[in-house]
Amino acid sequence: MKQAQVLVEVTRGALVENYHRGHVAVVNSEGKLLYSAGDPYHRTYWRSSAKPFQALPVVESGAVDHYRITARELALFCASHNGEAMHTETVLEIFKKIGQDHSLLQCGMHMPYHKETAQSMSEAGEKPTSLHSNCSGKHSGMLALATQRGFDTSNYLDLEHPVQQLILDYIAYFTKYPREQIAIGIDGCGVPVHGLPIYNMSLAYARLVNPQGMEEDRASACRRVTAAMMEHPEMVGGTDRFCTDLMRVSRGQLVGKAGAAGVYCVGIPAQGIGITVKCEDGASRGRDPVVVEILQQLGYLDQEQVKALEKHHRPQNINHRKEKCGEVIPVVRLHQDA
Amino acid sequence: MKQAQVLVEVTRGALVENYHRGHVAVVNSEGKLLYSAGDPYHRTYWRSSAKPFQALPVVESGAVDHYRITARELALFCASHNGEAMHTETVLEIFKKIGQDHSLLQCGMHMPYHKETAQSMSEAGEKPTSLHSNCSGKHSGMLALATQRGFDTSNYLDLEHPVQQLILDYIAYFTKYPREQIAIGIDGCGVPVHGLPIYNMSLAYARLVNPQGMEEDRASACRRVTAAMMEHPEMVGGTDRFCTDLMRVSRGQLVGKAGAAGVYCVGIPAQGIGITVKCEDGASRGRDPVVVEILQQLGYLDQEQVKALEKHHRPQNINHRKEKCGEVIPVVRLHQDA
Repeated sequence: MKQAQVLVEVTRGALVENYHRGHVAVVNSEGKLLYSAGDPYHRTYWRSSAKPFQALPVVESGAVDHYRITARELALFCASHNGEAMHTETVLEIFKKIGQDHSLLQCGMHMPYHKETAQSMSEAGEKPTSLHSNCSGKHSGMLALATQRGFDTSNYLDLEHPVQQLILDYIAYFTKYPREQIAIGIDGCGVPVHGLPIYNMSLAYARLVNPQGMEEDRASACRRVTAAMMEHPEMVGGTDRFCTDLMRVSRGQLVGKAGAAGVYCVGIPAQGIGITVKCEDGASRGRDPVVVEILQQLGYLDQEQVKALEKHHRPQNINHRKEKCGEVIPVVRLHQDA
Repeated sequence: MKQAQVLVEVTRGALVENYHRGHVAVVNSEGKLLYSAGDPYHRTYWRSSAKPFQALPVVESGAVDHYRITARELALFCASHNGEAMHTETVLEIFKKIGQDHSLLQCGMHMPYHKETAQSMSEAGEKPTSLHSNCSGKHSGMLALATQRGFDTSNYLDLEHPVQQLILDYIAYFTKYPREQIAIGIDGCGVPVHGLPIYNMSLAYARLVNPQGMEEDRASACRRVTAAMMEHPEMVGGTDRFCTDLMRVSRGQLVGKAGAAGVYCVGIPAQGIGITVKCEDGASRGRDPVVVEILQQLGYLDQEQVKALEKHHRPQNINHRKEKCGEVIPVVRLHQDA
């Protein structure tokens, strides 16, 4: 098993003060490992980077068409959103369409990621609701599927629930990883999360963006999910969020989705390639710069695009006096495997 | 150079989802390296774990006695405090005693670390002031010294300022590290921070808690600083803070002080031993459990004390639905060096 590699250095003055280590796997849709860093077979949870695959059965089942879910709403099924008004209002709209009450949401609650929204809520003495949970879009997708198929909507989080079992089928299909070997944990929002090698996560993204050879309903569902994310990146994250900025800047050239605990996945449709980054310490401070750096090194982002993503690529270490103390520098070096 | 070692594993379900690596050095006051993990000579910034040494010249200069600074106020000079009312009011009291206005504080501002205080400020529409900065106590100590000695109080942050030069003398003295080799960076609050091997940080803590052989004024200053911290631990951190809970639970048996970016230092007076932990990724999630674990392994905390520190030693990974998803498990293994 290969060791985690240093992916990012965080400087202060003349010293490197912190290091972020991890693993990278770049895989094409035929399963060829093209590039790696650290251990491309490192096993971890997919977390929210699995969201496009949790949305796919909602499309392929016909629920999205049945309820006239728009591409913008579909993008929210795949989101770890900011809890801005555009997100919470869209979740409410989805519940109206599926004829259910949003009190069915069991995702728990936390203050919006979006600082200004959180601040104005605090100032108004407002408490967060489940609508503000970054996962409320994903949960509304699960509930759309459960409602359309007539499944119990009260226990849709349980691993045994048909919605979660269907999702497990899709994950095994796209990752080509044995269903029974997928480790199961509980996510921040209560649904099952899926533990598997990052190689297989990359393979799944490669297949998602290049669904050639799949039966047409599935291939079409893939195209709808990725198109929705790329056309409505503001729904996938929100103001100032990396996923949103990355997909905006790359204008339809890639799909990117963050997961918690240091995971990030990218799919490049033109090349049929999937990329997974895992920072072993779980720090998003390390993760986002590495993603931009790899996309630049592999030629999937040009200089102008990288410049537009500078605050995500080379964040500055600014102190409480607004002085620059240091920098976050991605130092990842990819090994060419094939 | 030895590699960073895995100090902490963070589990979710059946998998380890995140790892925190780092370095440990356990040193006695004669400079003998007793135990280590990773590289005991790893060079990094001392950050706020240097605060007792930044307070020492304020005592030894006579400023503390001159202004009738109490032990409770002296503890605040060494603090990374919570910004609770007990902290901000004490800073104001110090400024009254030194006959200066707290507008001299140049530490910048951030919302209090203490969540309830921050929340009630938000709800009242209040903005943070420099009093709420976790470093306002340290800065008030620097200003007490500058005022008493008649130094310029407008540029006390500058490396060239006599207060900072004096602090550099003390740091070189206690760490026995060549003054000219100390790397200088800028801290979160604007003052110089000091880059040196963690071995030397541990040595300094060992000497701080066992100042035998030093001239009496200096030894007395050491005893006053450590006694102040141990007798008023609530001033060093605050409600629910690790430093505070650790010193409370250990009842005068040790001095502990956190630094940013994954640093922690402990001094054990009875044995004249200093301990430094550095998590290379900077995560405090990893740091605090490792400190408790090491103190337990070395017999400096008994079972009951470790139990009382359980939330810092083995924090649970709780999700937004208040379910337990996993655990933070310190796995540090110390190498016996002497």
